[in-house]
Amino acid sequence: MSSTMLPKIESPADLHSLSEKDLERLAAEMREELIGIVGRRSAHFASNLGVVELCLALHLAFDFSQDRLIWDTGHQIYPHKLITGRAAELHSIRTKGGLMGYPNPAESLYDLFMTGHAGCAPSTALGLKAGDDLVGHPERHSVAVIGDGAFPSGIVFEALNNAGGLRKKFLVVLNDNQMSICPRVGGLGYYFDKARMTPMYSDWNRRVRKLLPSIPLVGDQADRWLQQMKDAIKASVHGGMLFEELGFTYIGPIDGHDLKTLRTYLEKVKAMDGPVLLHVLTDKGHGFEPAVKDPVKYHAPAPFQRVEDGIIPLKTSTHKAFTDAVSAALFAAMERDPKVAVLTAAMCEGNKLQKIREVFPDRFFDTGICESHAVAFAAGMAKAGARPVVDIYSTFLQRSYDQIFQEVSLQNLPVIFTLDRAGLVGSDGPTHHGSYDLAYMRMFPNMVVMAPGDEKDVAPMIEFALGHNAPVSIRYPKANLETIEREAQPIELGQAEVLEWETDGIFLACGTLVSSCLRAAERLRQQYGLRIGVVNARFAKPLDKTVVLKAVEECGFVLTVEEGCLAGGFGSAVLEVASDAGLSTANVRRLGLPDHYILHAERDEQLAEVGLDVDGIARAALELARAAGLPAVLAENGQACAT
Amino acid sequence: MSSTMLPKIESPADLHSLSEKDLERLAAEMREELIGIVGRRSAHFASNLGVVELCLALHLAFDFSQDRLIWDTGHQIYPHKLITGRAAELHSIRTKGGLMGYPNPAESLYDLFMTGHAGCAPSTALGLKAGDDLVGHPERHSVAVIGDGAFPSGIVFEALNNAGGLRKKFLVVLNDNQMSICPRVGGLGYYFDKARMTPMYSDWNRRVRKLLPSIPLVGDQADRWLQQMKDAIKASVHGGMLFEELGFTYIGPIDGHDLKTLRTYLEKVKAMDGPVLLHVLTDKGHGFEPAVKDPVKYHAPAPFQRVEDGIIPLKTSTHKAFTDAVSAALFAAMERDPKVAVLTAAMCEGNKLQKIREVFPDRFFDTGICESHAVAFAAGMAKAGARPVVDIYSTFLQRSYDQIFQEVSLQNLPVIFTLDRAGLVGSDGPTHHGSYDLAYMRMFPNMVVMAPGDEKDVAPMIEFALGHNAPVSIRYPKANLETIEREAQPIELGQAEVLEWETDGIFLACGTLVSSCLRAAERLRQQYGLRIGVVNARFAKPLDKTVVLKAVEECGFVLTVEEGCLAGGFGSAVLEVASDAGLSTANVRRLGLPDHYILHAERDEQLAEVGLDVDGIARAALELARAAGLPAVLAENGQACAT
Repeated sequence: MSSTMLPKIESPADLHSLSEKDLERLAAEMREELIGIVGRRSAHFASNLGVVELCLALHLAFDFSQDRLIWDTGHQIYPHKLITGRAAELHSIRTKGGLMGYPNPAESLYDLFMTGHAGCAPSTALGLKAGDDLVGHPERHSVAVIGDGAFPSGIVFEALNNAGGLRKKFLVVLNDNQMSICPRVGGLGYYFDKARMTPMYSDWNRRVRKLLPSIPLVGDQADRWLQQMKDAIKASVHGGMLFEELGFTYIGPIDGHDLKTLRTYLEKVKAMDGPVLLHVLTDKGHGFEPAVKDPVKYHAPAPFQRVEDGIIPLKTSTHKAFTDAVSAALFAAMERDPKVAVLTAAMCEGNKLQKIREVFPDRFFDTGICESHAVAFAAGMAKAGARPVVDIYSTFLQRSYDQIFQEVSLQNLPVIFTLDRAGLVGSDGPTHHGSYDLAYMRMFPNMVVMAPGDEKDVAPMIEFALGHNAPVSIRYPKANLETIEREAQPIELGQAEVLEWETDGIFLACGTLVSSCLRAAERLRQQYGLRIGVVNARFAKPLDKTVVLKAVEECGFVLTVEEGCLAGGFGSAVLEVASDAGLSTANVRRLGLPDHYILHAERDEQLAEVGLDVDGIARAALELARAAGLPAVLAENGQACAT
Repeated sequence: MSSTMLPKIESPADLHSLSEKDLERLAAEMREELIGIVGRRSAHFASNLGVVELCLALHLAFDFSQDRLIWDTGHQIYPHKLITGRAAELHSIRTKGGLMGYPNPAESLYDLFMTGHAGCAPSTALGLKAGDDLVGHPERHSVAVIGDGAFPSGIVFEALNNAGGLRKKFLVVLNDNQMSICPRVGGLGYYFDKARMTPMYSDWNRRVRKLLPSIPLVGDQADRWLQQMKDAIKASVHGGMLFEELGFTYIGPIDGHDLKTLRTYLEKVKAMDGPVLLHVLTDKGHGFEPAVKDPVKYHAPAPFQRVEDGIIPLKTSTHKAFTDAVSAALFAAMERDPKVAVLTAAMCEGNKLQKIREVFPDRFFDTGICESHAVAFAAGMAKAGARPVVDIYSTFLQRSYDQIFQEVSLQNLPVIFTLDRAGLVGSDGPTHHGSYDLAYMRMFPNMVVMAPGDEKDVAPMIEFALGHNAPVSIRYPKANLETIEREAQPIELGQAEVLEWETDGIFLACGTLVSSCLRAAERLRQQYGLRIGVVNARFAKPLDKTVVLKAVEECGFVLTVEEGCLAGGFGSAVLEVASDAGLSTANVRRLGLPDHYILHAERDEQLAEVGLDVDGIARAALELARAAGLPAVLAENGQACAT
C-alpha cells in the first residue's frame, strides 16, 4: 500500500476536512510509514505504532500552532512528525542531517521541547501554561502526553502535586500501554492495572456529584460526610482516586485506538477547568501483530523485512559491545560473591541484564525510570553490607547527581556505578550523549573514576571496584568491543597503563579511544617518523600523577583524549595536576567534546565531527608536533615543499 | 528545671526501665534542653520540639542498634541525639568540633546517614532493608521518618512506588505538622489535610477486610466487585487511599504527642507485613507556645532568652546579606518588567522572598521541595516568553542537574538561576555547602556562569541576565554584603573587571572573595612591597580570555581564588584557556575547596581551614612570589636572614 492520504497533510489543519473513513485510512498509512522506516534502520517502533490515533485525536481537538503539546520522553514522536509537515522527510529520521528521532524545535513549531529523558513533560507543559497566562495568552491549552512507564519518575509526582496546588487548566494524557521500555515495575503499575479493570469514570460520576449536594445534611459534620460519601461513590466506580486525591479530575480509562471515543473525550476535557488526567489505554505495537506480542523486542528493533507470513531480520551486528562485557563481568561477580546486587532503572534490555534478572532475581532490582531512588536505594544496600552495582546509562544517571553527592560520596559508601553509553551515542542524539560523567564524578570526594581502555580492562576493573571500599564509577561507550594486543597490567588504584612510551609526543587517553590513539600513533610513525607514546589512563581520579608529570616534562607534546566534555574533564584534571606541580603546560592540549550539542548521526560520524576519530587525533598531534618544531615533522615539511 | 532523667539515659536501652510518668518527665526535660540550646545559638528548633514523643516511641518500639532508622532531612535529629548517648555534648551542636546539626555516622552507630537534603530517607531505608535481607539479617526492621514538607519530593514517590512493588516489610512514618520550612504548598498538602479530618483508619477497617471475603459472590465479576466494595468502605472511613493505591497499608492519623498511642501503634505496625505508612500528627514547636504559633520564625531562630512572660531575642546581625541584595534586585526587576517571575523550592524564608510573594502573588511560584520540577517548570515558562528566575540554594539545585541540562541548556532557554548559599555555609556543614555549581554549570553549553564580586555587582548582574536571551547562573555566598569602593564598570558578557593591574602577581577572583583578595594584596604590599593586582572575574563562563591570557603572560604569578571545588572549577577554566592558547601555566596556582568534605563550623573558621581567608590567600601568594623569585620578597628574605 502506498500513501495517498498522507502526502495531502501539510499541517494538522488539513486533518479537519477529513471524514472518519479518511482518518482511518490515514492512520493505516501512518502505520505503513512507520513499518517502512524500521525496514531501513534501527528506530523506535512499538511506541509509535501505539499512539497513531491518540496523535490524530489530539491534533483534531486542539490547535497546537497556538496550544501547547509535549510528548514525554519523545521517542513516540513519529506520528506527530508525519502530520506536522515532515512526512516526506521521515525516511531520514535518526540520520545525519535528517529528522531527529525526538521532538526538535529546530524542525517545527509543533515541537516545543527536545525531550528524551523521561517524566519532564508535565512540568514543562505546566510551565508553558503558567508562562502563557503571564504573557497574556490564558486561552492557550497545555497538554502533556506521558506513558505509564515514565509515570513513576519522581518529577511527574512533583508536577502533579504542583498542578493540584495551582489548579490551572492543564491536561495530562496518561498513555497506558502497560509497559516501560522493559516490563513495568512498582506499585503504580499495579494501580494502573486496577484502574484498567474498573468501569469508565466520567460523566456518570459527574452527574452523581451534582446530585449529592442536594442530599439534606445538617450540622458541622455535614460537609465531611458528604465528601466521604462522594469519595465512596468515586472509589466504587473508578480507579482514579490517586489522581483525584492530588487535585486532578480523573477521566478514563478510554480506548486509545478508538479515534471517535478519543475525540469525544478530548473535546470534553478541553472544556473542563483545573488539572485533568485523561487515562488512555493503548497497545504498544498496535496494528503490527509481532510488535504487540513482543513490545520489548520491538521497542527499537534492528531493521527487518516484512514478507507474507514472517519477518526476516536484516543483518545486525554480530560484534559484542562493551555492554556485553560489563554484563558478563557483573554476572561472574554475582556468581562469585552473594553480596553483589545489580540495580537498573528500566534499562534491563539496553544494559543486557536479562540473564542476571533471570538467574539472580533476588539480587536484581529494576526500580523503573527512577534514577534518584535507585542510587539512594543502592546507598542503603551498601550501608547494610551488600555490594550494589548501579547500572545506568551515563546520561540518565545525571538524574541522580544529588544522590551521588549526598547518599554515596558524602557517606563514602561502596556503591559501584557502571555507566553505559558514556560519550557519543549516535542516532539518539543530544539528549542521550553521556558527556558529563567524567567531569562531574571527579568533583565528588571519595569517588574513584575509571574508564576501561579496552575489553581486557572491563572484568578486572569491576573486580577492582568490588574490592575497593569506597564509591567507584566505571564508564564505557556505546561501541563494539575492542581489544588491544598486550599482556594487560593489573588494575592498581590510580595507576595508568603505559602502552608505549615515546617522547616526541604522547597520547593520554581516558577510555576506549585508546585504540584510536594507537592507530593514530602508528599512522604518524609510518607517515612522518614521529614517535608518539600512548597511555591508557584507566583512572580519571585519582589521576596517575607520576605518569602525567613525566609526560608533561619529557614529551614534546601531550595530547589528552577523552569522550567527555572538555570543561572540567579528564584533560582539565591533567592540567590541574601539572599546574599544581608548577610545570609548564604549554605543550599540553586537550581533545574531547566541545561546548555545543552534537546532533544525531552515526557514532563514527559524530566522533569525526568533533575530531575524536583516528584522523582527528592524528591531525591534532601533527599540529602539536609542528608547533613544537619536532625534527621528524619539519623534515617532512621540507620534503612536502620540495615536491 | 534542671535535667534529672536525661543524664541517666546513656543509650535507648535505658528507656525501657522508665515508667510512663518518667517518660513524660524525660520528654519535658528534652524540651528544656532544646530551648536551652537555642538560647545559645541559631539552631533548628520547632521541628525538634515536634518529634520528642515520636523519637521516644520509636526507640521504645524498636532496637536501633540492630534495626534501621533514618530521619529524613535530619534537622529534627536533636531528641534522637539526646537519648543516644550525646546529651552531655548537645551544647556543642553546630560548632567546630562539636556535634553536627544533622545525623552523623561518625558520632554514633544510631546515625546511619548524614541527611540534609529532603526526601531520600524512604529510599535509603528501603535499601537498608534490601541489603539486610541480602546479607542475612531479614529480622531487622527498617524505618524512615519523613515530614509532610519533604513528602512532595519526587524521590519519595519513587521510593513508595518501588516499595509497593517489592512488598518488603518496611515502615514509613509520615510526620505531618502541616508545614514545610515555609507554609506547605501543592495538591498533596490538601490531601494530607483531608486525611487529618477523617477518622482513624486501622483495626476497624482491618476487621472489615477480613469479613468481606466471606460475603458470597459468584462469577467472573466477584473479585472485581469485592475489591471495589472494599475500596468504597476504605474511602468512606479514611484518607489513606493514595498510599493504599501504591501498595502500602495506611494507618492513621494518630496523635504524635500521645506517647502511649504512639507506642501502641508502633507495636502494631511492627508486626505487620509489607510496606506500611503510619500517619502521625505533630505540632512543630510543641511544648513551646511561641514556636507553635509561628513555626516559620522558629524553624531555626536567632538565639533568644526566655524570661517570665516574654522572649528577648539576643543580638542578631544587623548587616544585610547577599540574599537581601538579590531579593531586592529581583523585586525591582519584577516592578520594571511584568514578565519576570520568581520560583523557589520551599526557600521563601531563607531566600527572603516574603515581600515578592506578597506583592506579586501571580508571579511567585513556590513548588515546595521539588527542585527538579521547579527547573523544568521554569523552562516551560521561558519557552512561553516569560522571564523566570529560579532562586534556590546552590546545594539543593543539584537536585535539578538533569533538568538544567535537558530542559534549560539543551533548549537554550533564558532561565536565570540565582544560587544562594554558594560556597561554604557555616554551621549546617557538608550537606549544605554549595561546592559544585561553578564546576557543573560551566559544563553545559549555552550557560553563562557569573558571580558578583560585591554588592555593587548584584543588581547589574541580574539586569544583565534578564537582558540575555539564554540561560544564566548567578551565585553568591551566605555572607554579609561587602562593597568595594570604586566606580563599578558595567557588566559586559565575558568581561572581567580589573580592579588593580600589577605584575608581581595577580589574583583572579571569581565571586565575593575578591574583597579578601584586595585585603591580602594590600597586606603584601605593606609588608613586602609586593605589587599584586586583583581581578573581579565576574564570569566563569564565558571567561575573559584577554584578561586571563594577559595575566598568565605578564604577571609573576597568577592565583585563582574561588569558593567552589577545585576539580573542574573556575581555576581549571583559567588553566584550560591558557593551555588552549599554548601558554605555560607554570606560574598559575588555584585556591578553592579541596577534595574532602568540610565539617560544620563558623563560615570564617571554614574559610580559614581551606586557606580562603585573607591569611590563606596572602600565604599562598607569598609562596608563589618566593617560588617566582620576585625581588621584593627576596629582599625581605635577605632582611629576614640578616636579623
